[in-house]
Amino acid sequence: MYKGKALEALKGVDVGDRIKVTKGERAFEGVLMPRSELGDENHIVIKLDTGYNIGIGVKSIKVTRIEKAAPAKKAKEKEVKSKDLPDVTIIGTGGTIASKIDYKTGAVHPSFTTSELTNAVPELSEIANIKTKLLFNILSENMTPAYWKDIAKAVAEELNQGASGVVVAHGTDTLGYTSAALSFMLQNLEKPVVLVGSQRSSDRPSSDSSLNLVSAVKVATSDIGEVVALMHGSSSDDFCSIHRGTKVRKLHSSRRDAFKSVNAKPIGTVQDVIIFDEDYKKRGKGKVTVDERLEENMALVKIYPGIKSTVLDYYVDNYKGIVIEGTGLGHVPEDLLKSVENAKKKGVPIVMTTQTLYGRVDMKVYSTGRELISRGVISGADMLPETAYVKLMHVLGSTSDMEEIKELMQTNIAGEIGDRTEF
Amino acid sequence: MYKGKALEALKGVDVGDRIKVTKGERAFEGVLMPRSELGDENHIVIKLDTGYNIGIGVKSIKVTRIEKAAPAKKAKEKEVKSKDLPDVTIIGTGGTIASKIDYKTGAVHPSFTTSELTNAVPELSEIANIKTKLLFNILSENMTPAYWKDIAKAVAEELNQGASGVVVAHGTDTLGYTSAALSFMLQNLEKPVVLVGSQRSSDRPSSDSSLNLVSAVKVATSDIGEVVALMHGSSSDDFCSIHRGTKVRKLHSSRRDAFKSVNAKPIGTVQDVIIFDEDYKKRGKGKVTVDERLEENMALVKIYPGIKSTVLDYYVDNYKGIVIEGTGLGHVPEDLLKSVENAKKKGVPIVMTTQTLYGRVDMKVYSTGRELISRGVISGADMLPETAYVKLMHVLGSTSDMEEIKELMQTNIAGEIGDRTEF
Repeated sequence: MYKGKALEALKGVDVGDRIKVTKGERAFEGVLMPRSELGDENHIVIKLDTGYNIGIGVKSIKVTRIEKAAPAKKAKEKEVKSKDLPDVTIIGTGGTIASKIDYKTGAVHPSFTTSELTNAVPELSEIANIKTKLLFNILSENMTPAYWKDIAKAVAEELNQGASGVVVAHGTDTLGYTSAALSFMLQNLEKPVVLVGSQRSSDRPSSDSSLNLVSAVKVATSDIGEVVALMHGSSSDDFCSIHRGTKVRKLHSSRRDAFKSVNAKPIGTVQDVIIFDEDYKKRGKGKVTVDERLEENMALVKIYPGIKSTVLDYYVDNYKGIVIEGTGLGHVPEDLLKSVENAKKKGVPIVMTTQTLYGRVDMKVYSTGRELISRGVISGADMLPETAYVKLMHVLGSTSDMEEIKELMQTNIAGEIGDRTEF
Repeated sequence: MYKGKALEALKGVDVGDRIKVTKGERAFEGVLMPRSELGDENHIVIKLDTGYNIGIGVKSIKVTRIEKAAPAKKAKEKEVKSKDLPDVTIIGTGGTIASKIDYKTGAVHPSFTTSELTNAVPELSEIANIKTKLLFNILSENMTPAYWKDIAKAVAEELNQGASGVVVAHGTDTLGYTSAALSFMLQNLEKPVVLVGSQRSSDRPSSDSSLNLVSAVKVATSDIGEVVALMHGSSSDDFCSIHRGTKVRKLHSSRRDAFKSVNAKPIGTVQDVIIFDEDYKKRGKGKVTVDERLEENMALVKIYPGIKSTVLDYYVDNYKGIVIEGTGLGHVPEDLLKSVENAKKKGVPIVMTTQTLYGRVDMKVYSTGRELISRGVISGADMLPETAYVKLMHVLGSTSDMEEIKELMQTNIAGEIGDRTEF
């Protein structure tokens, strides 16, 4: 994988070999890593025994092999199933948590056979009988409602076949949208469904993969009967937070504790054991079913000063439902009222949420809000805009009656609408 | 203003009168308030001596007048100007902070003559010689780039005529957008410009108006030379936070401490005195000028799973610049890459920000980001999406050269791009 000058400097050694790199008076020892995707031709990367990767400029280096890369071990594929442990299925969908760089071959591949996972994170086998299922392998920015259906059906199948709980390994970019989608689509859910991701891949010393995965499996064996998302609870590698699937949002682009519950407290935390801090639906009995009806012709539109009414007209003309991220308590510029009226005439439901994210929509306080109510705009209460978007897809999947839509959107179905407590 | 049964029950008394309301064995005494806009015909509202308003059902009540409403006092319009105090101009633009219900007449009106303000908040006169200027009176959801220009010019005029600092009273819904706009439009700014709002109107016991206004005037006399936003720093009525104009965002729909600095710490706090916690530009000498060139044909588009490429096509076809709120480190679904390419061909700059709000865009980490970079997408670094939207308007106002646009968007002009420190 190395090119140019780096390739020349590495003559006679292979990725995965243990090598010594001498540069003037300094010497480094470690395993030669595959060239990082960001690497140029002037550096090589080795993993030190401390676990850290370092880049070394190839100018006047000498490289010698200390030990040839061992051939990849053939992991045993048959695990003995323990009767004392619950069964947990881990469904892979892609993203950082499902990816692994094989230090021996340099290949990036989904690391998702049971033995690969339990070899990488041996603790998993002490918590549950792990079964893995690689459903697909996509970056989560490419997630679509069609994939949500596949995930929901796979989850239901595993649960109905007797799994104690299911973990869904997912890219973090859109994990919150998927957790909301599963919350609405999985009907009569009585067991834990745990979405888990990773902000730093497992080849980085600061990876959050192991702790997140172990904690997710613990939650999948717990007495909760809901869809939750589980990620680091702090920027240290010390505990994880359990978030309700409809209330969770990625609120940082890179931190390990990027996920937060918005307008709710996390349901609980996982350190060695699970501590539940808030009420949750308890595990029960019965088969889960999937309601996969989704109106996919749906838009999520953010309001900003200077937005033209033609923008809203465009969505009204082309979509079956619209979720607006309004300002403050749920407002749009008065210039847009005519377009809102037009949506009402055309039978296109508009749900109002707020771009403040925290707090509730309340369109009764100011005149603008009352104008919107009188034009049929539905309050999203304290729902996240992203959750309201998914919910409107779900609701329009089963009805096109405007009164029913309004009623359902304003009724708490899966923990998405909270009471008026402030956090 | 009362109607129906409420009006009948109030026969013989007027809004503003001190009345006694007897209902069965209970009696209430207070000033009759105008019917709240939310009020129905079955309640009247009185303000108790504690300052709290209560609603009383009109069924079987008896109302008697204790004291006729006093005629509104003619406030003295001429204030003696103190030579020892700095001059501060408060510019009114509307919103909750500029509104006042006159308890005597029931009229809602902008409370913005100097004497009205200093009578309502006497402390102001101890900090500065206050001059007020009601520029216009709009709800801030109706704010537009055209109004930003009016505000910028009014601010510059006051500062150049000798004011020590200017306070801009503004509705909270879009206060963050305006503070960003002023940050870019006011060139060679050497004095404080303080945006201030209020989350609870002054007729409510929990109002934040007074503390915010007093603190804003203090900051307007300080040695800062930047555009800042000032609001409550906690949910108690105890201190205010000073936020950099390009880093501030409304993050709660109703709390008094709704405004937060994102990807930055607040510059300082105001309790009795101002405590600066972070670096800031010091007050200096020289005239401020206004660069009012803004490309208003601009869009801010949020990405979500299931978004269709035709949505981005629509904006590319109709707008001169686009700011995207991508997922994670700055991603869009791969289906949109063709539309992004199309934007490049048409010379429509696309700036990438992240819907996580916290953290930075980094399109070099994953393949999707690199695909975007190769198609000319400009990184918004750690800029708020809202700030990037305003900045792109400003930048396109002065150049249409793509290299220059890219260079300017990625250069810190007014504190909008921070270093890589995490908060």
